[in-house]
Amino acid sequence: MIIDQLITRIIEMKNPTVVGLDPRPEYIPSFIREEACRLHEEPCRAMAYAILVFNKALIDALYDIVPAVKPQIAFYEQYGTAGIECYRETVRYAKQKELIVIGDIKRGDIASTAQAYADAHIGKVETGGQAVAMFDTDFVTINPYLGYDAVSPFLDNCRLYDRGLFVLVRTSNPGAGDIQDLETPGGKVYEVVGDKVSAWGADLRGQYGYSTIGAVVGATHPSQARVLRERMPHTFFLVPGYGAQGGTAEGVHACLHQDGMGAIVNNSRGIIAAHLSDAYKDRYPKTAFAGAARESALAMRAALAL
Amino acid sequence: MIIDQLITRIIEMKNPTVVGLDPRPEYIPSFIREEACRLHEEPCRAMAYAILVFNKALIDALYDIVPAVKPQIAFYEQYGTAGIECYRETVRYAKQKELIVIGDIKRGDIASTAQAYADAHIGKVETGGQAVAMFDTDFVTINPYLGYDAVSPFLDNCRLYDRGLFVLVRTSNPGAGDIQDLETPGGKVYEVVGDKVSAWGADLRGQYGYSTIGAVVGATHPSQARVLRERMPHTFFLVPGYGAQGGTAEGVHACLHQDGMGAIVNNSRGIIAAHLSDAYKDRYPKTAFAGAARESALAMRAALAL
Repeated sequence: MIIDQLITRIIEMKNPTVVGLDPRPEYIPSFIREEACRLHEEPCRAMAYAILVFNKALIDALYDIVPAVKPQIAFYEQYGTAGIECYRETVRYAKQKELIVIGDIKRGDIASTAQAYADAHIGKVETGGQAVAMFDTDFVTINPYLGYDAVSPFLDNCRLYDRGLFVLVRTSNPGAGDIQDLETPGGKVYEVVGDKVSAWGADLRGQYGYSTIGAVVGATHPSQARVLRERMPHTFFLVPGYGAQGGTAEGVHACLHQDGMGAIVNNSRGIIAAHLSDAYKDRYPKTAFAGAARESALAMRAALAL
Repeated sequence: MIIDQLITRIIEMKNPTVVGLDPRPEYIPSFIREEACRLHEEPCRAMAYAILVFNKALIDALYDIVPAVKPQIAFYEQYGTAGIECYRETVRYAKQKELIVIGDIKRGDIASTAQAYADAHIGKVETGGQAVAMFDTDFVTINPYLGYDAVSPFLDNCRLYDRGLFVLVRTSNPGAGDIQDLETPGGKVYEVVGDKVSAWGADLRGQYGYSTIGAVVGATHPSQARVLRERMPHTFFLVPGYGAQGGTAEGVHACLHQDGMGAIVNNSRGIIAAHLSDAYKDRYPKTAFAGAARESALAMRAALAL
């Protein structure tokens, strides 16, 4: 099962890090963007080219030390067709390098529409006789606000195509509590959602005891993460918010069982934009941005100390 | 303001209908799909071509009797770059015909990522010197589960570019209640979300008294819709679930003020696939599918009787 593959790679690499491929334009060194503009007159095509060059260099520098990458589709979708093609190429290249790919799409819609999203991202799209694996990611993130029937087509595809999910439970952003922290008779909203995610994934557990239906649980509120870790013992967590958003190693440890397992921690800016940070910018020339990313990823591995 | 334009068109046409452009392959007559396959070998490109021909014929048949269309992006995104281009072309063609376009994207993400979505769908994307209106819809639907900072970039763009939102409050699908109906000290989750949506849109009201920040409220639970209508007097509703999902005129009327205003009602299958229904299929040959759509849209207008 795909969740077992992910955990096996985490154990082998002693690294529970997923690198967020959120290629904001300001992260991409100017020499790449200038080359892109020379090659492509159409501005979105130039941006998409620059992002792909940037991503491939990062993947080359990281694939032997991190188990997974997580492209955030918004940063690709915004450039239209060129961006969407770049997203597909990024996924394809990362999988060639044996990285596990988590598509951060946060989709959520009623059943018949959710089926279209599920088929596109973790399944196959019928096009009249020929089924196409369109985006072909290993996992996707999804939004639970519409309830079970919005999730169900994704669960079906997890079974059919051996894929996985991370369902938003408690996110790491400042406004996360507006709805997620509301008190209900069954606990806070995020606890109720957590219980549902556990139940949805109960019959999809792999060899390590974790379900292929995971949860997004932020590192910014350790006490909440601790409650969820106990409440959802068989659910693997995708942990955003480490670093830039204020999440700490304490927040991460709250997401882990005593054996140090149970979560994969996302870091985007801290790794892919390491070359712009005070810690690295004087030691790495712009052309060596991927080296800075690698050093930063190694430092994060050491800080998490699995 | 865009909400005023929408309401003016509803009044002029005496029709509070939005046509859901959810082009499932089975809705598209085979003569169009066959032509598409003759012209395009690549299956996704053929599907995208077929969808665009289908959509344009529907738009031509409907633009003088309905105020708005709502393409559901999942049915385009699933065909990758060809599908995304078809989505853009559909939006562009509908706007040329002076239809208001509601992009049914249901995106929701943390602030910095939400900004990318907001710029792409209801704003402009910076590409290094040149700002591109990528998808350029008038309204989009968004998901509130991540709280205020996930919504805020969309609110900013509504101000900057005169666009509007419909935030998911109480959806029409069977599982909607799983999370949305949970009891909290401030009312059910959907009521609390409704209060937030009202507050977010309080300073964005147009000449008719409605805010450009609207809400998605299903027609399938009239009693809930009635509560929300009273609780959110200045919020315009986008009402899904009419027809196929079991929503009735009673459900729609629960979304309206006594003057008959306050909502726009979505119908997709009932209009765009009218040519397949028992009511129309014997009277319209396949090639006249757009005529069946027009007759069905006129019947819906009469049923809603504004």
